[in-house]
Amino acid sequence: MVLPLRLIPRVAAAARLPRAPLPISRRAPLVPALAMAYSTGSGADRRLLFRQLFEKESSTYTYLLADVADPNKPAVLIDPVDRTVDRDLNLINELGLKLVYAMNTHVHADHVTGTGLIKTKLPGVKSVISRASGAKADHFVDHGDKIHFGNLFLEVRATPGHTAGCVTYITGDADSQPSPRMAFTGDALIIRACGRTDFQGGSADLLYQSVHSQIFTLPKDTLLYPAHDYKGFTVSTVEEEVAYNARLTKDKETFKTIMDNLNLPYPKMIDAAVPANMVCGIQDPPPKI
Amino acid sequence: MVLPLRLIPRVAAAARLPRAPLPISRRAPLVPALAMAYSTGSGADRRLLFRQLFEKESSTYTYLLADVADPNKPAVLIDPVDRTVDRDLNLINELGLKLVYAMNTHVHADHVTGTGLIKTKLPGVKSVISRASGAKADHFVDHGDKIHFGNLFLEVRATPGHTAGCVTYITGDADSQPSPRMAFTGDALIIRACGRTDFQGGSADLLYQSVHSQIFTLPKDTLLYPAHDYKGFTVSTVEEEVAYNARLTKDKETFKTIMDNLNLPYPKMIDAAVPANMVCGIQDPPPKI
Repeated sequence: MVLPLRLIPRVAAAARLPRAPLPISRRAPLVPALAMAYSTGSGADRRLLFRQLFEKESSTYTYLLADVADPNKPAVLIDPVDRTVDRDLNLINELGLKLVYAMNTHVHADHVTGTGLIKTKLPGVKSVISRASGAKADHFVDHGDKIHFGNLFLEVRATPGHTAGCVTYITGDADSQPSPRMAFTGDALIIRACGRTDFQGGSADLLYQSVHSQIFTLPKDTLLYPAHDYKGFTVSTVEEEVAYNARLTKDKETFKTIMDNLNLPYPKMIDAAVPANMVCGIQDPPPKI
Repeated sequence: MVLPLRLIPRVAAAARLPRAPLPISRRAPLVPALAMAYSTGSGADRRLLFRQLFEKESSTYTYLLADVADPNKPAVLIDPVDRTVDRDLNLINELGLKLVYAMNTHVHADHVTGTGLIKTKLPGVKSVISRASGAKADHFVDHGDKIHFGNLFLEVRATPGHTAGCVTYITGDADSQPSPRMAFTGDALIIRACGRTDFQGGSADLLYQSVHSQIFTLPKDTLLYPAHDYKGFTVSTVEEEVAYNARLTKDKETFKTIMDNLNLPYPKMIDAAVPANMVCGIQDPPPKI
């Protein structure tokens, strides 16, 4: 178990729920000595293995990051979806990684998180969400926390506005960390757009402030990876969004007017997804046999 | 116009068709001096700007590559789809790139290529396909050709089997080129799978030989980017596919048996898509006014 430096483990309510571990079938992973080769990064910095995964029904991106230079190859999964948990865990197994944290950027309203299911299938994995979300999890994070896996870490920034508890996870600001930095923005910032602000403690005012103070102030070459994309984009940069985001480049009052007039339909999954996601996606885990 | 070193321009039949240029609306591109920052690569090698784009209906990946260290920022687009041409050209414009080549890995049967439409919207762009495809285009490539854009280049490898004219485009094998290498495999290799072999001169025998001799022999850390993915994967590596590809890890006879027994339905778009794609996607361009 890789212990985070500044993330203090807490026994959360969800951790006390009975669990029925269902080990996934494990094929022999690749020879560990070769796993350095999996990074998608160019150049010398190949410590980070990075994979972007897509769930088509809800257009959700799940992100896998691992320190493949660490002998244990500790990994984190950001915003896993329940429907694609088997795909994700199978990939993690094939790559010879050790999943440490299953994390959410926020309490999703459009799909059920995979974190609870992952915990039943891979005991030892800890779920992570912001304290401000009000949801259950093994670890709660606050603005400024760092989440360590091997010699890599993610910085937590509070970016409320889509929901009251939204955070953005950003790769560390240090020479030893990936360059350019990578920010996993959840629904706070979507490529050329942003998440809606009319549910779950949402606030257009707060979202505007969050993005401008916490995301647009990152280095211009920071790669932005959202929780969703509906047009087939996979990545953007701070510089691009500062120049071309259709909503967030406006002044705050114009932005608020845009958000107040989106006239979006009631989210079709919200009544099922939000209660489930408040408890890691599994409300009634099967009893231990 | 960036001239390729080894790709000899030819006046193809398609180039003589009348064209009705429809210039896309152009917003001011980003300050050119900053465009170095767009690479998704980590480390020192930021010459390559790379974007993976998804077309959801046909689950097609389109790839944008550009040399952003070259003052002209020459770019190529691999496997564009007609439905997403406006998205792609808008992105190219926003990033301040100059599209030079619109290329296909093969004559697609499941969607209409965007290359013809791109040529009507951005006169000067040249379409590229393999000579073995039998399709019309501005430039025909053969095994061993190099396609230059700025100081970057793609190597062409013939990888027939899904169709008789399939090629794989691979970033160059030189210190000045991106590391790890990146291979755009079309339908020859799909992550953990491969394209079907029962139409368009397809041959399971030939596909097996192509992948094993031309793709599996690349450096193990070569990143593999297919033309399609149906499970939400975005990238794999040679090492991963050599270990885990569900079909191509088998011996040739087993592979052929698998391919002979896929029992796939008749491709629903093939009768419309293939004739269109034989002429860059536009069979009857509007007459010049």
